[in-house]
Amino acid sequence: MRILSGIQSSGRLHLGNYYGAIRQWVRYQDQGDAYYFIADLHSLTSVKDPKARLEFTKDAVLTLLSFGIDPARAAVFVQSHVPEVTELYWILGTLVPLANLERAHSYKDKIARGMNPDFGLFAYPVLMTADILLYDADVVPVGKDQVQHIEFARDWATKFNVTYVPGYDPQDPTGKEKGHAPGLLKLPEARLEEATAVVPGVDGQKMSKSYGNTVDLFGEDKDVKKKIMSIRTDSTPVEAPKPTADAPLYDLLKLMAPTPADFAEVERAWREGGRGYGDFKKKLLEWFHAQLDGPRARRQELLGDWGHVERVLADGAQRARATATPVLQAVKRAAGL
Amino acid sequence: MRILSGIQSSGRLHLGNYYGAIRQWVRYQDQGDAYYFIADLHSLTSVKDPKARLEFTKDAVLTLLSFGIDPARAAVFVQSHVPEVTELYWILGTLVPLANLERAHSYKDKIARGMNPDFGLFAYPVLMTADILLYDADVVPVGKDQVQHIEFARDWATKFNVTYVPGYDPQDPTGKEKGHAPGLLKLPEARLEEATAVVPGVDGQKMSKSYGNTVDLFGEDKDVKKKIMSIRTDSTPVEAPKPTADAPLYDLLKLMAPTPADFAEVERAWREGGRGYGDFKKKLLEWFHAQLDGPRARRQELLGDWGHVERVLADGAQRARATATPVLQAVKRAAGL
Repeated sequence: MRILSGIQSSGRLHLGNYYGAIRQWVRYQDQGDAYYFIADLHSLTSVKDPKARLEFTKDAVLTLLSFGIDPARAAVFVQSHVPEVTELYWILGTLVPLANLERAHSYKDKIARGMNPDFGLFAYPVLMTADILLYDADVVPVGKDQVQHIEFARDWATKFNVTYVPGYDPQDPTGKEKGHAPGLLKLPEARLEEATAVVPGVDGQKMSKSYGNTVDLFGEDKDVKKKIMSIRTDSTPVEAPKPTADAPLYDLLKLMAPTPADFAEVERAWREGGRGYGDFKKKLLEWFHAQLDGPRARRQELLGDWGHVERVLADGAQRARATATPVLQAVKRAAGL
Repeated sequence: MRILSGIQSSGRLHLGNYYGAIRQWVRYQDQGDAYYFIADLHSLTSVKDPKARLEFTKDAVLTLLSFGIDPARAAVFVQSHVPEVTELYWILGTLVPLANLERAHSYKDKIARGMNPDFGLFAYPVLMTADILLYDADVVPVGKDQVQHIEFARDWATKFNVTYVPGYDPQDPTGKEKGHAPGLLKLPEARLEEATAVVPGVDGQKMSKSYGNTVDLFGEDKDVKKKIMSIRTDSTPVEAPKPTADAPLYDLLKLMAPTPADFAEVERAWREGGRGYGDFKKKLLEWFHAQLDGPRARRQELLGDWGHVERVLADGAQRARATATPVLQAVKRAAGL
């Protein structure tokens, strides 16, 4: 079973990236053939500073390795190192109804947030679909807001197969049920992680670089402290019990507690009253360091051995291309290219 | 000076392709470094039959060589053999305002002609621009309906340079005037061939595969005859002078006359009356063969030496990639990929 996931190199990675994605990636690498990529081509749609992009790409790979993504198991690579993806992106795009893209959530959301509607933003789901289909992915872990992308990937893969694979029947996509020709592009399954909490940012909205409410995984100590101390709280007095709804501090404590017992202790104090928010923030800061000082130290080590990181990426790209090349060749042959 | 032009492999080539493009291409190969490509990636937007696409691609290369495109001078290649173009297509697309594409003539025209609006059709000008910019083209010969594409190419190349080339000034794009940094992507010039007549089809509209009014360059003799005999004429009697306006037969005679003297003779008869349209059609058929039997024979020879044709295409792709690779590498480096 091949599991594929990507992370954009469009900013420094933060707690939301870790608890929302990377933590699961570490688990997935034991469950199948994992492909993890850093989506630098996608980042072109939002980041126009080339130095920043290179920094973010570097930050992303360091982060993955620091948290225990093991290149001996998972292929870790940079999206633009496998140029085949852009070929599939064009080919696939010629089968995509414009109307699909006009109703893409990601596009509509970004427009609503005031981003300039440029072609890259609009075309984003087509490249994302090419990323998935190029590697014959079986499973793509997604958040709720990305389920639509997997539906697109299934629809467009089906459209390709119907158009270019003689004898293909969309009712029998693998050809195993009724003896039809198997599809050339594999239909991926979305894996929706119910367990993955939405990680709140310091203002209580979903933690996201675009909201400016993140706590960076590898920020400097003083910046991390400042961010954690700035988490929005209400005016409940010290001695009173604290509300657990719409309480980003509570949610973050739950997420970062080293053990359930640690959280149970804090939760009791939270519900009983008698401790102020400042105390809880200090506890969160303590836990932040308890959880992240290990990866932070590994990151420093990796920074001192950049040759190793480059070998990991070169090896990852090579493995990814070894999978991508025959898929793309079959696609081009089928399409008469 | 590099001259670049492409022809789509979306149908059998016809008189309109020859008099509107290929004839000029033969001239241009003496004027500079000519790059001619067969746009099979573009054909994906209209042709969904892979066998037909391969046939059309083959037909196009045979046609170019039959008419005297000389691979020793011009690089002749198939678009999909230079996959770098799709990388530039994505990168460039992230700088293209959506509004540009919404007002693209080619898109609006095709929609108006009832084609389904799919993403490929919409994205078409971005791939076309990548085709131009990837090869550092100085000059792109175009018809009036394509001038907008060159304007797009200039706008988007400028946008790339402004975004990713430090010290670039759009007022000084080569950097030679005021000592700014030169642009990385070269701004192409459109060459509008005023002399290139619009070639009328048998129904009097512009000759175009999509109107079903073509005379194929390499059709079978009986089909060519049938097509020429079906050219729309009016009911002017044999003895009367014939009108020269809105007269596709007259325009085609003018275009296909072997010499000006030949045409002068026919024109006198046309204006004086006394000859019927049937006679003029026979004359056109005679001229068709006088002009095209040479290329038609060469085409047969080439069909018997397909190995030669493949070597031409392999060599063309190699030369094209040798130009494309450093351009793309510089683009990726500048963009932080």
